[in-house]
Amino acid sequence: MAKALKVGLAGLGTVGGGVLALLAQNAALVTKRAARPVVVSAVSARDRHRNRGVDLSALAWEDNAVDLAGRADVDVVVELIGGSDGPALALAKATISAGKAFVSANKAMLAHHGLELASRAEAAQVALKFEAAVAGGIPVIKGMREGLAANELTAVYGILNGTCNYILSTMERNGSTFAQVLGEAQALGYAEADPSFDVDGIDAAHKLAILTALGFGTKPNLEGVGIEGIRQIDSADIDYARSLGYRIKLVGAARRVGEAVTQRVAPALVPHAHPLASVMDSLNAVVAEGNFVGRMLFQGRGAGAGPTASAVVADLIDVARGEWGPAFGTPASDLVSVPAIPLAPTIGRFYMRLTVADRPGVLAEVTATLRDVNVSIESVIQRGQDPLTGGVYLVLTTHAVVENALREAAAHFSRLESVLAPPVVLQIMDL
Amino acid sequence: MAKALKVGLAGLGTVGGGVLALLAQNAALVTKRAARPVVVSAVSARDRHRNRGVDLSALAWEDNAVDLAGRADVDVVVELIGGSDGPALALAKATISAGKAFVSANKAMLAHHGLELASRAEAAQVALKFEAAVAGGIPVIKGMREGLAANELTAVYGILNGTCNYILSTMERNGSTFAQVLGEAQALGYAEADPSFDVDGIDAAHKLAILTALGFGTKPNLEGVGIEGIRQIDSADIDYARSLGYRIKLVGAARRVGEAVTQRVAPALVPHAHPLASVMDSLNAVVAEGNFVGRMLFQGRGAGAGPTASAVVADLIDVARGEWGPAFGTPASDLVSVPAIPLAPTIGRFYMRLTVADRPGVLAEVTATLRDVNVSIESVIQRGQDPLTGGVYLVLTTHAVVENALREAAAHFSRLESVLAPPVVLQIMDL
Repeated sequence: MAKALKVGLAGLGTVGGGVLALLAQNAALVTKRAARPVVVSAVSARDRHRNRGVDLSALAWEDNAVDLAGRADVDVVVELIGGSDGPALALAKATISAGKAFVSANKAMLAHHGLELASRAEAAQVALKFEAAVAGGIPVIKGMREGLAANELTAVYGILNGTCNYILSTMERNGSTFAQVLGEAQALGYAEADPSFDVDGIDAAHKLAILTALGFGTKPNLEGVGIEGIRQIDSADIDYARSLGYRIKLVGAARRVGEAVTQRVAPALVPHAHPLASVMDSLNAVVAEGNFVGRMLFQGRGAGAGPTASAVVADLIDVARGEWGPAFGTPASDLVSVPAIPLAPTIGRFYMRLTVADRPGVLAEVTATLRDVNVSIESVIQRGQDPLTGGVYLVLTTHAVVENALREAAAHFSRLESVLAPPVVLQIMDL
Repeated sequence: MAKALKVGLAGLGTVGGGVLALLAQNAALVTKRAARPVVVSAVSARDRHRNRGVDLSALAWEDNAVDLAGRADVDVVVELIGGSDGPALALAKATISAGKAFVSANKAMLAHHGLELASRAEAAQVALKFEAAVAGGIPVIKGMREGLAANELTAVYGILNGTCNYILSTMERNGSTFAQVLGEAQALGYAEADPSFDVDGIDAAHKLAILTALGFGTKPNLEGVGIEGIRQIDSADIDYARSLGYRIKLVGAARRVGEAVTQRVAPALVPHAHPLASVMDSLNAVVAEGNFVGRMLFQGRGAGAGPTASAVVADLIDVARGEWGPAFGTPASDLVSVPAIPLAPTIGRFYMRLTVADRPGVLAEVTATLRDVNVSIESVIQRGQDPLTGGVYLVLTTHAVVENALREAAAHFSRLESVLAPPVVLQIMDL
């Protein structure tokens, strides 16, 4: 038996506890798979004396996480601190500089600093692994970096935020409003007190930026991600979508369009027969479309102690086996910059819900405006009343249109006296 | 740039052509991912002069595939010949003996001789890779061997045969009989002239034996797989299943039961809300349930030139990167034998369709028999007529019962004068 791989663990929250539990409970299996024991030798967290329900007495302690990197009894550092900069980033740099492997679940840091860290890790010839940073327990990083490595991708997209998917699923199931479900989710601990990171799409954008780099061999480009959250989704939208044959999901999607790659996080109407439509509650799923493999779906638990620990320890087993390669599948120096596509020329089908005054002539006014900007309408529904304004709902779906023509029309509508609330515009995903 | 990885390719059918096409079309990408070019240097196939639409003139030719192993210009052999023994097996052994990596899509060979080949490969410290052998383009071998490596599995199961899934999906969609759809599938080239390998569950059993070894660290044990095909499924069964909330799928499943692992390929009623229920047509899907990761689903194309080539070349990229380890994730010498569970003590819920004479008293007779063997009935449907016998259908679902009690009752029924056709007994899968 080769000598043990010694782990320095930074962060002892839910996930850190999960990693300790997994390495204890599945020790024999991990040793077989890694061809050597994987043991935590030193830890660091904010409060040494908090009761975590695990015995840390045999482990060395560092008050300053960065000091884990320099310890002689640490071969690899697992970073579960979080935050795109600060101690997490300092620890990453110190670990790589010390010529040691670095494993992280930190999507914000990877989205912001992935290129720099990958370059440093490749120069130092150490592993930089982050399976847990995207879609929790789903081995989608490995799946894309290695499993689908032979494919030029046309698209990678998925349901990347479990909180949003839970909220939308519950709104659909119970007919509740966004605010009701969010409140319940916060009470149950499924959503943060400040939910904006999740419900405004930022967390999904971090994950998408990482997936895009992996899938397309591009430099991680968080600034290039168009981001829209789910606050504007009304239960009426969910009902209309269902009657039209769709479910509303927050989808993070990167697509190749000519030489460019578009990146967008936004709620979308997903056809019932699309594999993403049946991904419910807090599950995550990622679809990759390759030029040889066709459409691949990975689905599973995107968060939580167990799934995240599963991903972290899979990375540790790779490290123990001496498996390393470019963090994004392509050497960092070969990752390319692609033009971020402006919104304007995007073509697609859309859903628009207007809240309008209940009087004759409004539909004629709306459809005339859309005709004038070349937006071709597929269907119109006029039914249902807005409890807030007393207005009635006018729901349109379009044929393929130039997106910014529709956005301009929507902006125009929101200035009309007969339109009582900001229009809700959502993309419709192809099957 | 490191020097090229030189490939000897045995078999130039659909998949072999796909591999050549992928390496040509995605050459720049593959070179980046592999950190070196991957080039085919020599080929072997049955007929040198058949027009395959690809120019082979620059490649060396071997009439005897086994001779690829010894060539100085071959670093790795890709075996796409098929067949569990014969030239494929001889080539595998010769390649490993020559100290070279071996990549194969041959599920029959791996199911029959996987343990021996893995032992040989590990002794020779060469890679033995077979991503394409199970579920085509879906990177489920890598996903289980590496991605979920940290998990003790409780179950691995899936839709492993695209032909059967296509037949069952089409029967449901069109209301056609098994024979009709099989005939159409044969005419379209989706099913073989002799379909028994697919429709009798043998192909799925090969794949399941491989997945079981990977998932549970057990010796591949094809003999331990209980196998039932789909020939007995009538469109009436599909209709009844639907009205009860299920879809019928051919499921290959391995489950841990105490110290044992059961392996079974059989049609099953899958609840509509289960992720396998929405896997339609020729798609494949694999579910793995781990003690930390929970339930993971991999779904995609299980066959065809493109998806299979994607898997073969992913293996080649791993080989080019020097990535190798135990073929089944656990060293071959550590793979354990587990008792194959006899059918008898299996507990589960079941569906039974009887074709009975249309006269009073039959239901009472049937239910009395089931009561006597402690089979608890959940629901009974009496409607529909069998076009062949003129009998009527009596469809029962049970609560959890001891399977062999139900099988004995079914055997008893088939001897009754009032029962006009062999009973159809199918398992009901839990959500």
